[in-house]
Amino acid sequence: MSGNIYGTLFRLATYGESHGPAIGGVIDGCPAGIKLDLDAIQNDLNRRKPGQSSIVTQRKEPDEVSFYSGIFEGKTTGTPIGFAIHNTNQKSNDYSHIKDSYRPSHADYVYDEKYGIRDYRGGGRSSARETASRVVAGAIAKQFLSPMDIQAYVSGVGTLSLDSHPSEIDFSSVEQNPVRCPDPKMANEMERYIKQIRKEGDTVGGVITCIIKNVPVGLGEPVFDKLHAELSKAMLSINAVKGFEYGSGFKGTQMKGSEHNDLFNSDGTTQTNRSGGIQGGISNGMDIYFNVAFKPVATIMQNQQTINSQGVKVEMQGKGRHDPCVVPRAVPIVEAMSALVLADFMLLKRTNKR
Amino acid sequence: MSGNIYGTLFRLATYGESHGPAIGGVIDGCPAGIKLDLDAIQNDLNRRKPGQSSIVTQRKEPDEVSFYSGIFEGKTTGTPIGFAIHNTNQKSNDYSHIKDSYRPSHADYVYDEKYGIRDYRGGGRSSARETASRVVAGAIAKQFLSPMDIQAYVSGVGTLSLDSHPSEIDFSSVEQNPVRCPDPKMANEMERYIKQIRKEGDTVGGVITCIIKNVPVGLGEPVFDKLHAELSKAMLSINAVKGFEYGSGFKGTQMKGSEHNDLFNSDGTTQTNRSGGIQGGISNGMDIYFNVAFKPVATIMQNQQTINSQGVKVEMQGKGRHDPCVVPRAVPIVEAMSALVLADFMLLKRTNKR
Amino acid sequence: MSGNIYGTLFRLATYGESHGPAIGGVIDGCPAGIKLDLDAIQNDLNRRKPGQSSIVTQRKEPDEVSFYSGIFEGKTTGTPIGFAIHNTNQKSNDYSHIKDSYRPSHADYVYDEKYGIRDYRGGGRSSARETASRVVAGAIAKQFLSPMDIQAYVSGVGTLSLDSHPSEIDFSSVEQNPVRCPDPKMANEMERYIKQIRKEGDTVGGVITCIIKNVPVGLGEPVFDKLHAELSKAMLSINAVKGFEYGSGFKGTQMKGSEHNDLFNSDGTTQTNRSGGIQGGISNGMDIYFNVAFKPVATIMQNQQTINSQGVKVEMQGKGRHDPCVVPRAVPIVEAMSALVLADFMLLKRTNKR
Amino acid sequence: MSGNIYGTLFRLATYGESHGPAIGGVIDGCPAGIKLDLDAIQNDLNRRKPGQSSIVTQRKEPDEVSFYSGIFEGKTTGTPIGFAIHNTNQKSNDYSHIKDSYRPSHADYVYDEKYGIRDYRGGGRSSARETASRVVAGAIAKQFLSPMDIQAYVSGVGTLSLDSHPSEIDFSSVEQNPVRCPDPKMANEMERYIKQIRKEGDTVGGVITCIIKNVPVGLGEPVFDKLHAELSKAMLSINAVKGFEYGSGFKGTQMKGSEHNDLFNSDGTTQTNRSGGIQGGISNGMDIYFNVAFKPVATIMQNQQTINSQGVKVEMQGKGRHDPCVVPRAVPIVEAMSALVLADFMLLKRTNKR
Repeated sequence: MSGNIYGTLFRLATYGESHGPAIGGVIDGCPAGIKLDLDAIQNDLNRRKPGQSSIVTQRKEPDEVSFYSGIFEGKTTGTPIGFAIHNTNQKSNDYSHIKDSYRPSHADYVYDEKYGIRDYRGGGRSSARETASRVVAGAIAKQFLSPMDIQAYVSGVGTLSLDSHPSEIDFSSVEQNPVRCPDPKMANEMERYIKQIRKEGDTVGGVITCIIKNVPVGLGEPVFDKLHAELSKAMLSINAVKGFEYGSGFKGTQMKGSEHNDLFNSDGTTQTNRSGGIQGGISNGMDIYFNVAFKPVATIMQNQQTINSQGVKVEMQGKGRHDPCVVPRAVPIVEAMSALVLADFMLLKRTNKR
Repeated sequence: MSGNIYGTLFRLATYGESHGPAIGGVIDGCPAGIKLDLDAIQNDLNRRKPGQSSIVTQRKEPDEVSFYSGIFEGKTTGTPIGFAIHNTNQKSNDYSHIKDSYRPSHADYVYDEKYGIRDYRGGGRSSARETASRVVAGAIAKQFLSPMDIQAYVSGVGTLSLDSHPSEIDFSSVEQNPVRCPDPKMANEMERYIKQIRKEGDTVGGVITCIIKNVPVGLGEPVFDKLHAELSKAMLSINAVKGFEYGSGFKGTQMKGSEHNDLFNSDGTTQTNRSGGIQGGISNGMDIYFNVAFKPVATIMQNQQTINSQGVKVEMQGKGRHDPCVVPRAVPIVEAMSALVLADFMLLKRTNKR
Repeated sequence: MSGNIYGTLFRLATYGESHGPAIGGVIDGCPAGIKLDLDAIQNDLNRRKPGQSSIVTQRKEPDEVSFYSGIFEGKTTGTPIGFAIHNTNQKSNDYSHIKDSYRPSHADYVYDEKYGIRDYRGGGRSSARETASRVVAGAIAKQFLSPMDIQAYVSGVGTLSLDSHPSEIDFSSVEQNPVRCPDPKMANEMERYIKQIRKEGDTVGGVITCIIKNVPVGLGEPVFDKLHAELSKAMLSINAVKGFEYGSGFKGTQMKGSEHNDLFNSDGTTQTNRSGGIQGGISNGMDIYFNVAFKPVATIMQNQQTINSQGVKVEMQGKGRHDPCVVPRAVPIVEAMSALVLADFMLLKRTNKR
Repeated sequence: MSGNIYGTLFRLATYGESHGPAIGGVIDGCPAGIKLDLDAIQNDLNRRKPGQSSIVTQRKEPDEVSFYSGIFEGKTTGTPIGFAIHNTNQKSNDYSHIKDSYRPSHADYVYDEKYGIRDYRGGGRSSARETASRVVAGAIAKQFLSPMDIQAYVSGVGTLSLDSHPSEIDFSSVEQNPVRCPDPKMANEMERYIKQIRKEGDTVGGVITCIIKNVPVGLGEPVFDKLHAELSKAMLSINAVKGFEYGSGFKGTQMKGSEHNDLFNSDGTTQTNRSGGIQGGISNGMDIYFNVAFKPVATIMQNQQTINSQGVKVEMQGKGRHDPCVVPRAVPIVEAMSALVLADFMLLKRTNKR
């Protein structure tokens, strides 16, 4: 398997299976001299961790990160930052039922076909547990990027959808409810719906919206590495994501050019922002915003027919403690991947001119 | 500017501005021993070229490709394939009106801010003319991938939308109409609509759907380089693209897990295909399909207010010959970028096992 | 700092400072299905570790590696292999004397200039302790490469030089003496010389020769990534290395073409092997051999004048337990880096042809 | 074949066979705003081109470069620079004798084994003609690097060797003689020797020394991408190179630490420069200097026994017009590759600190 390293200059290599002794990573290329707020890093991990509320999986994992290098007297030194999160919840016997069977819409079957071997415990490498390493690196990238400000929130759960434009959101309330939806009334409805879905032993999908403010002009490399192209890849690399749109997105396809164009103000800002803060693949200084589509979690607490590795039909029921809806915990992951993309482009931007 | 090289093993480097002497590229990593059908390559270029029908720009560019290396006695040799398309339509004087002004929703402003210099003629490097080089490389990648089959078509123009599932499309009719919509009736409506839009001096967006058949199991690298993540980046790297969704996409966010899961047949195929042929970032052998959202072309034949490089408000009207709707010509570009992604993963797949 | 990731397909990311809590790394791209001999990995670490004989540094570091991922039921799974070596010998107070002074011919000064901050304890990231991570990854690469056989040995210490051609070496005796010189008589002389040098509080350089047998034809990518070019980079990336030559090397520059050319046998082997097993950057199936030059260790147990960070002249004497000659412990490092290069090219070779 | 792209930020992709219609490349990542001296580029090409003096091959190739993009009104724009050198000397019939036979110590055999197909005309891609593209890119990199100053010269031809330290060389005379040796007397001897060798139908090897002045402190990424490691790879990637040493090099292995260490002056410069301007992989501001070993050209004008592709022994004699000694024409190639390495590290250096 290749592809466990992300980025060009600000790079993250991750490792780790759901039920191995540890997951972790190496951040290569983080500039020297950043005074790190370690609590802020742990805080982002806590926003992702299981067991944080009644609507997410009730597994208990403290997800405490240990740093092994690259930080000296509270500051980054420029050398690679090695870190690990030790797994404390390795109940491998929970997973004997999937040792030899393929869960529907999971990666079990393709792993076996591709590699000829699979660590089946908790999904192994295909588990979203891997994203904890991304949150660590993203939290460091955020501190490098400051005062650039990256904030994600839940804008959809099933058919419940928050229609406010991202630029109008009051972010103070996002962390006030377990759904991470900034509208308290909608958050309440979503929470109730997720609880009902859980009661049915079912799961449901959702949408996360992210907005990035205080973006300098000039981030992104036109042609293949457009800013939104990398953001899109970063988002689609998160487990369960099915789609990405930025600025006017899919709705923009129905508009006319005369309606869609963003006219300039004298200072280079634009009167509207259907471009989503990016023109020709390069940030224009306006807010960047985008939507990320998450499918419903594939593990359900209902009987499903499936096959085992011999192709024999078998009955399967989800066991263990799973999320009925993934989006509340995915909010910090979306932010983290955004931060990794932007940190990379911030460094690349320094090489534009003589 | 970095980011003019795409891919890990099957790589494409491109160069060229809209009005320079030539555009072209270098394909590095194309395997040896592929018998090339040069006509098929030119045919894909012809599907992209201006002037091919009454609903696209009436510029005349023959877009003939010259190969400089990497092909010997009709076969690829494994060495890099250098190629060029010489520009025959360099009317630089057409562009004096944008030399010092920024077209709304174009890249003029951000290029000036980022690089401090800009080849303003025809949009320079930000012109979609660059994608002709991608079509050349993609056409070669297609021949490497055969019998894998990549086919794109127009499924939306403005609010006109073809609702058939990609797996039910009869592809024989796609190239029978200038819109490249496989449903003749809908194609006709779309054509009429585009003509009307052009008459208004306006432009309109659209959607391209792509389906890939005969895909082997095992393409894609889980974690950061998931197959759909790379496809997404590849699509968003195409000019004017605002969104990407695969399989159930954004609609899938509204479904329950019990509705969304694809149950297995005994042979590892699935009864439904909401996964879009990809599970956990790895192809599962089912058809891959996805939608790509294109915004309306920013250049309109109407007066718009904008600013010049001194921040002074100026009036601007689009000149020249532009596309009222970009999707008919973008069909081969979507196919080409898909082919580059899949060629790369086909080679990577060879390295999975001992 | 970038550049802590090595390789294209078989990749190693490393982290860690001399006196931090741990060093370690992530191996990305190791193929699935390799049955790992963990003892062989630890054995290579033991060949590199301090305190192993009377002629190397007497520091005590057990250098035990912990694997965190990528191995399941004794085999590689294709997922990234995360590992760590916890430091047990963190006497930071030993290094207060260099906190603010620059050791001659060390990296202290350039780190401060480049990064503005430096973990001065034991040389921080510039310490050769980092190479233990390379030995771990190299030992795994060796097992992937088997039956390819990579063996290094000490061929020079100061002016003492073993003149046998690498293809005539009896490797059974290399590990029989602390110098790792295959000629017992020469090994003895070298050992005595190193002891004398140590007594003087001085250090001395040396040469390591490496030979690689059972190499398939076709490894290496001509042009920029020639097999010997990558080997050279890999060797020069090892601390204290000043030069690399392969095949006829620098002596070959004095020869005539008529003397130097390797004439073919009917089976494609050659009658001589001045090419060093590589022609045009590609392995030809003959033994690959090369020499690696190591300068004398910069830390000496004598007084030296130097400067502090304010540019003030200060007196400095090496403290602690250092190697009088680095080559005996560098033998497994040379092998490890060779293995990483060859593993990468073995995987790349699979992509040559249709 | 992969590996036709060099560099991380300042990247060069090249293409082209000896007897195809053109060779050329794409430079990606060259910063915007460099005022280019096109004559200086052509001048470096002229220093490399055949037929320039009586001691090099008498082939006639004008080697005129055409630029296709990336330059506007005399300055780099930041977009990729595409260029081509059209071949005017395509006498393919000259090469029928090697169509099916393998020249000793050439790449013919390994290309056939690796790719299963080979453009045999003039060595195809394995011809040193490919290096003309490097000279173009290197000449642009030099202009970016100015006032950094890269100068190479011939320091050895066969057993004739110039012993002056690189820092003592008077460079004004290098281009005054066809050998490019800065010492007129030695140049004369070398010239006579090369002429005698040519008369014998033989060839001879040599050494090129390169010195780089006005180097800022802080270039190079410690660990895997040390400045000297990349220089070494860059040099070994040049056709016919067998070795690289920098600073004290192989001779330094015989020295003691007390003799070898470079003691600091108060300003951070050093009293001696055995380190060759690099400590721990990072430039320290002192002159960088290194030696590059070239083997004798494999094509000789004498009868040699060899084999054909069926393994049958055949007689072969070199035909055409070849260099009796490659070093005089390789001087600008060594400079070009040095410039590419340094340009890359100059850009990377901008990313070190917050």
